[in-house]
Parts: sequence; C-alpha cells; structure tokens
Amino acid sequence: MSLGDAFHVFDTTLRDGAQREGISYSVSDKLAVARLLDEVGVGFIEGGWPGALPKDTEFFARARSELTLRHARLVAFGSTRRAGVRVAADPQVLALRDAGTSVVCLVAKSDVRHVERALRTTPEENLAMVSDTVAFLVGEGRRVFLDCEHFFDGYAGDREYGVRVLSAAFHAGADVGVLCDTNGGMLPMGLGRVVAEVASRTGFRLGIHCQDDSGCAVANTFAAVEAGVTHVQGTANGYGERAGNADTFAVIAGLETKLGLSVVPPECLVELVRVSHAIAELANIAPDTHQPYVGSSAFAHKAGLHASAIKVSPDLYNHLDPAVVGNDMRILVTEMAGRASVELKGRELGIDLSERPDAVGRVVSQVKELEAAGWSFEAADASFELLLRAELDGAPAAVFTLESYRVLVEHWGNGAVISEATVKLYVDGERIIATGEGNGPVNALDQALRTALTRRYPALESMELADYKVRILEGRAGTGAVTRVLIDTTDGPSTWTTVGVHENVIEASWHALVDALTYGLRHPRADDHDVSGTLVPHQHQ
Amino acid sequence: MSLGDAFHVFDTTLRDGAQREGISYSVSDKLAVARLLDEVGVGFIEGGWPGALPKDTEFFARARSELTLRHARLVAFGSTRRAGVRVAADPQVLALRDAGTSVVCLVAKSDVRHVERALRTTPEENLAMVSDTVAFLVGEGRRVFLDCEHFFDGYAGDREYGVRVLSAAFHAGADVGVLCDTNGGMLPMGLGRVVAEVASRTGFRLGIHCQDDSGCAVANTFAAVEAGVTHVQGTANGYGERAGNADTFAVIAGLETKLGLSVVPPECLVELVRVSHAIAELANIAPDTHQPYVGSSAFAHKAGLHASAIKVSPDLYNHLDPAVVGNDMRILVTEMAGRASVELKGRELGIDLSERPDAVGRVVSQVKELEAAGWSFEAADASFELLLRAELDGAPAAVFTLESYRVLVEHWGNGAVISEATVKLYVDGERIIATGEGNGPVNALDQALRTALTRRYPALESMELADYKVRILEGRAGTGAVTRVLIDTTDGPSTWTTVGVHENVIEASWHALVDALTYGLRHPRADDHDVSGTLVPHQHQ
Repeated sequence: MSLGDAFHVFDTTLRDGAQREGISYSVSDKLAVARLLDEVGVGFIEGGWPGALPKDTEFFARARSELTLRHARLVAFGSTRRAGVRVAADPQVLALRDAGTSVVCLVAKSDVRHVERALRTTPEENLAMVSDTVAFLVGEGRRVFLDCEHFFDGYAGDREYGVRVLSAAFHAGADVGVLCDTNGGMLPMGLGRVVAEVASRTGFRLGIHCQDDSGCAVANTFAAVEAGVTHVQGTANGYGERAGNADTFAVIAGLETKLGLSVVPPECLVELVRVSHAIAELANIAPDTHQPYVGSSAFAHKAGLHASAIKVSPDLYNHLDPAVVGNDMRILVTEMAGRASVELKGRELGIDLSERPDAVGRVVSQVKELEAAGWSFEAADASFELLLRAELDGAPAAVFTLESYRVLVEHWGNGAVISEATVKLYVDGERIIATGEGNGPVNALDQALRTALTRRYPALESMELADYKVRILEGRAGTGAVTRVLIDTTDGPSTWTTVGVHENVIEASWHALVDALTYGLRHPRADDHDVSGTLVPHQHQ
Repeated sequence: MSLGDAFHVFDTTLRDGAQREGISYSVSDKLAVARLLDEVGVGFIEGGWPGALPKDTEFFARARSELTLRHARLVAFGSTRRAGVRVAADPQVLALRDAGTSVVCLVAKSDVRHVERALRTTPEENLAMVSDTVAFLVGEGRRVFLDCEHFFDGYAGDREYGVRVLSAAFHAGADVGVLCDTNGGMLPMGLGRVVAEVASRTGFRLGIHCQDDSGCAVANTFAAVEAGVTHVQGTANGYGERAGNADTFAVIAGLETKLGLSVVPPECLVELVRVSHAIAELANIAPDTHQPYVGSSAFAHKAGLHASAIKVSPDLYNHLDPAVVGNDMRILVTEMAGRASVELKGRELGIDLSERPDAVGRVVSQVKELEAAGWSFEAADASFELLLRAELDGAPAAVFTLESYRVLVEHWGNGAVISEATVKLYVDGERIIATGEGNGPVNALDQALRTALTRRYPALESMELADYKVRILEGRAGTGAVTRVLIDTTDGPSTWTTVGVHENVIEASWHALVDALTYGLRHPRADDHDVSGTLVPHQHQ
C-alpha cells in the first residue's frame, strides 16, 4: 500500500549513513539493507553516489535487476555540475542520470562561505550550477530533490543566499528543498523558527536533514515537521558521520505514535525492531541496547521500585505498548531489582515462584554474588533459568563430568596456525577422550565436546553456535580483569543465550559452552511443547 | 568558583543513572564518580537512596569523611513517607535525614492514577505525605527539592492534581519542583507548552527531568529551559533505565555553547571529554564513540568530500571548536576517504606526503584490501603508521623473526586452569626459546615474547599492555567470522593502539602484540623528542 506523496520518509542509510566510522558495506550488503528499509515502509531510499564511488555505481546497476521494492523508490545522490563545466558534459551528472532512478537527490552549497572557501567559485556560478543541473535532470524525466547543505549555518549569517539557492532549484523544476543542518549544531526551537520563516517566505515544499552533534537530531526533525516540512531524512539507527544522523526509526515511531501522523503503511510499524537489528548486523555494529523504541533495553525495567508496581499496571510504566514497534517488555534480573524482579522473571519463563519465597531469596543472593564477580544474567536467560531450576528442583542431571581439558594453539614455521582441543569426560560412568580441531581455540573445544557427547546425545547434532561475544571487564579496585563470554545457541526454532566468566577466555568460554549444551539437552524440545513442559526455550525475537 | 544558585545543574548518575542495564557500582566507584562529576562543575550530585539500598547508605557515610567537593553539593534521594505512617516514625525518612546531606531530593507521585493504582492510597493522603515529609526535612534544616514523578503523563489527563502536589510541597517549604517525564514519551514542543503553563499558573521555581524514550531527552531539557525552568537533571553519558536519561554533558555543552547560559564554572567545560570517558570506565561501559561533543568520533571526518575541503577551513565543518569541550578533530583512514584523508592523516602523524603521491596510492589500496578482510585502522594509529612507514622507507627493521609459537590452556582434574606459551624466535641471528605463563593465553604469549626479547631490548620493561579489546566480526556473504583485537600499550607518557585480525583469536592477538612492541621499540622515545624524530608517539587524550 502506498501512502501517496503527502509526506516523505526519506532514508539515507546507504549514502550519508555509510559515512559512520567503522561502516563499510559490500554491494550485496547494500541491496540487503535496501530490502529491509523497504519492509519498514520508508518512501525513498537514497542508495549512494553513482559516478563518485565505484561500489555505488555497481549498486544501482545491480539494483535494476535484483531489487524489487514494495513501498520505496530508489534515489541516486550526486552534486550539482562542477563550476565552469557544461552540465551535459559533466561525467558525474551523466553518471547520476545513468543510475536510472526515477528520483535524484542533488546536493548544493547554500552557505555562501562554503561556496567561496570550499567550492572556490562565485555565488552566482553556484546558483547557475543548481539551476542547470536541476533543469537537466528534470529534462531527463527525473524528479529532483535538492539537499541544501549547511543551510542553517548559512542562514544565520545571510538570510538571502540560501533562499536564492532554493528559488533557483524550484524555478528549474525541483520538487523538494531539503534544509540541512549539516554540522548538526542546531536546537529545536531555533531550527523551527528558521523553517517556519523560510516556508512562509518561499511557499516551497521543504524537507529536513539533521545531524546529531547537539544530541537533538530527532527532536529537530519533529520541530521542522511542526513548522511545516513534509519530507524528513534520516538513517537506520542514526548511523552517520561524527555523532550521526536523525534515527529514521525514532523519527517514524515519533511521527506515528506521538504526533499522530501516518507516514508508513500501517502494517510496517511492527517491523521496526526486527529491521533495526538486521541492519545493525549488516553494518556489523552491535545494536545499541538502549536505543529508543527498538533497543533490547528500551522497555526493560530494573529498579525494584518499579518492578513491584509493574505487576499491577504495566501500562503506567511504558510510554508506549512495546508490541506496537515489535518490541517486548523485559524484566531484568539484577541485584537492584530484588525479589520482585526474580518472581516476574520466573513468570516470564513460565515458572511460578509465588509459593517459594525461600528459593527466591537464595536466587537473589546468588545472583548478587555472581554479578559482583562479573557475571551478567541480563542477556543470558538460559544460564539464569539453569540457576533458578537448580535452586527449585536441585540441579538438572549433569550431562557429563569433566576430568580435564587441554587447548593448544600453534603457529608453525610454515605460517600455518592450528587449534586443537582434547577433553576427558565421564558420561554415564564411561570415560571418554575426544579431540577436536577448529579455526580457533573455542571452536576446537566445542568440536571436541560434541565429539565426546554426540553418541550419547544425538540431539546435539541439531544445535549449533549462532553467535559468540567476548567482553573484557576491566579490573577495578585491585581485582584483575576478567573475560565475559556470551554464547547464542540455536536448534532452528529456538535460540538461547548462556554466559561464562573467568580471567581466562578459554575457561569463560567453556562455562558458557557447557551451559549452552546442558540447557539444550535438559529442556523440552520445541516440538515437545505439549509435554507438560514448564520450560519452553525462549523464542528469539 | 561557585555560580551561585541562579541555575542548577543537578546530576543523578549515581541514583537514577545507576538503573541502566549492566551498571553496578561499588561504593568506591560511586565516590570516584562523584569526584569526576564535581570536576565538570555540576552544582548537585544525587548520590543514591539511603535506607533503601545498603550500598547507598554506606556511600553517604563514607562521603562524609572521604569526599571533598569543590563545586557540587551532595544530595540524598528518597521517597515521601509511607501512607498512614507518621513521618517521624518512617525509617526511610529518618535514613534520609541521617544521610547528613544539606540537600534532599524527594520523589512524589504526581499522576493521580499512580497514586491510586501503584501507591494504593488516596489523592489526599498522597498530598499529606508530600507536605509532611517536606516540612519534616525543612524542619531538620534541609533544603528540599521535589521530583514530581510522571508529571507530564498525569497532566495530560488531569491539569489539577500535579499542581496540587507542587503546591503542597512549596507551602511546606520546598525550593524546587522538578517536573519529571518519567516514561520519557514527551516531545519538546508539547513539553515546553506544559512547563510554560505550570510556571505561569504557579510561579514556583521549576526543574526538569527527562528520560530518552522518544530520543528527545536533551532537546526536551532545552525546551523546558526556554520555557523557564532553572534546574536541569541529567546523568553522565545519558546512562539510565530503558533508553536512558538526558545526558548531563550534552545538556551542559548545549546550554553553554548554544544557548549562551553560564551553568558551570568556566574552567570546567574543557573537562567534559575526560570526565565522560573516566565515568564510562567506572561504569564499565565502552564509551559511545558517536556521543555528541565527547565521543571519539564526535569531530571525526571520514568522507572524501569533506576531507579535501577541511584542508581549507576546518571551522566550516564543525559545529563547535572541539577544544572547547576537550575533544580533538580526527581524520579517519578508510576506503571512502581516499588520498586526501591519507595525506591529512600523515600530516597529523608529522609525515609530509605531499611529494609522495606513489606511496599514498599504495597505502590507499593496501588499506582498502586490509579493511575488506576486517582490519580497521581508524582506532589503530600505530599499526597505520607502521604500514605508512613501510611504504615510504621500507619496513622498519624487524625486532625478531618468528620460527613458531605454541599456546596451551589446560583445565586440570583438580580444577586449576593454567595458561602457558612458548615462542621460538631469532633475534639478531641468535635462536631464542622462551616460555611464559599468564592468567590467560594472550597474557602468557605476551610474557613469553617479553622474556625472549628483554635482554636485547631492555626498553620493553617500561612498556605494558594498558587495554585489550576483542571483537568478533561476523562472517557475511560466505566468509567465516574473524576476530579483531585492539591492544593499547603504554610506556607512561605515551599510549599507542595496534590491531590484529585473524579467524583465530590467538593469532589476531599475536599480530597486535608484535605491532605494539615494534612500534614501541622502533620509534623515538618520549624523552628523545628533540632527536630529529619524525615519529613521536601519539599522545593519548
């Protein structure tokens, strides 16, 4: 379903957002990101700068055959013709045309100081560059948006020049003039006043593009909307240069749920969390757990003060029903939370603790002690459930008893690097020795453990490590540094997370591995869910 | 220097901010955080909730003898007396008094739904609880601020009750009524309107406390200031429950540099970056590299487009001189940046590349290739400098030639975990075999390498590993996962960062270790800076 042209959500994750420190997309990544942005219902996806970056030229070429979008139109980005060059002879302008998108977004200088000091041309020539390039592309049948770079900084010194740039573009046929806070220093009230003034002086259709250098990019975008813009630019998760851009997801969620606008198709809002996390994967950036709306902590409650009241009225403690954006409310297990949180967490896991105050007390003190040593159960639901079960019912039958393990990494004279692990275990009284190799020490240990156990526990074959995270926790107050390892394991339908902590990364990994296999083997399988199972593996969101 | 009482910067890192998922301060940590907040010039430091949390009771007790603050006053937080209890008989109120601070911040329900559904008392009793508790503490000689919890949500449904809570507090002697957006769902324009209305209806001194659930906490704080509040609450780096709180540092920087207010002593602004990073260390949270003002990327420029123009006029591309808040402008080495960035980076390192276009071209293509394989030179200046030097002058003389290494981790039957590494090297033609032990495999490898080299290179004794970071880079598009290791090494005056990437964490660590020692040994020492040294180790900020 299309929302028509009344309001534009314009995403520039693949162009401006790709300038974030640490991001480097392959062309396939870019195609995958574009598909995800389409699923969240944005109207425009700026794909890159054909002609300037070879990867982007290839992206647009592949997009023509490989990319089918339901909601969004693809946009090519480029700059106005170079100074002193005929527009039809400027290879970058031709590359922009040849990208073959129906919409083009041009960037132009709109701060006269940038024209003179960075572009090194005259204010008049810059206006001609805008006018010529817009007219050329409109003549080629393209719809043209104009990004007015440094608009607000320019406007502060000279209220006329930026407006002349806008006029040049609109008289040449541009559709939207996007006011850019390129250096990101604006605050909402001041920005809103400028937008309202320019809107009333020109009557043009305006858009807004905000960087987050003052920490106000999302709010600045809302201020511009309240002042009359009908086109907002942002990037997935706010990725972008320096402090980043306005976060497209917070902008969509705010416009829809706070300002009551309809800016994406109604079925798309619930995709925000999934799309946000998937793009983080592709960008290879750990998702920001505290990101508004979509972070895994965005609706997580920790304080004991709140946890007890949440039992009564969850709606009083959330600014929004988390399900609206595809998120969940979570209760965190942590020393500050105390008994109420452990009980609520038990309920979330399907375990009724209301009759077992003794066990709750023991769990709280055990969690306290382990957290002081660096463990964290906030993300490791499976390890917490094993701990809880052990307190309630006694430990689940151990899968094996360890005698010893040994891990070896060698870098040989010929440059080869090998990893090998040997485990010695007792399984049901039988002593088993097994050796595994891997591309690293933990992988070798995992292989050795599986080799030792699979004959007795064939279900292990359906489980695999889905993710492995390492965090060095710095030593403080005289304690040494320790390593915390989180392992995600999946059997297809379910994914569970376990934790291990030790000063030695191998031993920390071992703890998390053993918990992962124990949880996987000692709990009802996903297809056993009707077997009076109190413990159903946690569905990964 | 004190700024007097005209404007309050009130920091609640140690109380509300401690509710962030993953944070758990020791009492010593809390004392250290308080000292740091004082260095940045905040007026009030809310230290915790004595009586409710034993750790906080201890904090206030130790603060009395151990904490000397130059700028800030310490504040104890607590709730109003319980319903149906005489105030002087409520142990939590007494604990609050006994914390011994000159200022107390009380929290009260100001949304009538919370009074009835969470507190389970009557609206009238809640007013009496506010009035009694404020009066009691004022009678004990304390200055009292009142946090009006859920003020904005309450006001949306009932414009009277929150104002009655404020009136009860002020008539009993409170000094400031803090309007709290506890669920964090407000946007600036709406919030500003409510603040202005309440200010004009009551004439009371108002404050603001914003959560970041809409991504607008900082902007909401500014909107409240423009609407008349003279007391702002925030937390260091925005730490807090769910999406966090308004970031005290962005609030201070914005008030000072954008709104032109004087809210901290003038010598304090330049401490923002240092204090932000130091508190992140204590909270044990990786600093947000993209955080406004204080992030290591906050003034970093990557795009080739900008990098060339920055040579001309750096001021045109920053919203603020980074030095004002103690930050630096950085140029990033990355494939998007191209030749201009490598040249600028060279200049930053004191290497003139303008006459060596051939070398620049080779460096750019090498960086491209390595970054595609997972290397990242953005943080690893020392590794980049070794690479650059190798292209310019040939590789620096190798410190040693590796024959092989072997790393062993064993978990024995008695539960002991040991790590041991052996290296076989040639140093100046001599074959050396050395073995080291450590608390983990990388530590053991570092020990073995030092043992092998120290006789020939005694300068190694002054160098030590300052930090070790591991990141798993997920495999995409058919490639396997690789591990990236960053190592910070220090010799006291200087710190440098090196990088290693490999599918095996031990081999990745080895690369970073070897670069770290090579850089340390092959560059002029800090006390040799007058020896025509083109390569002075990078000063750590």
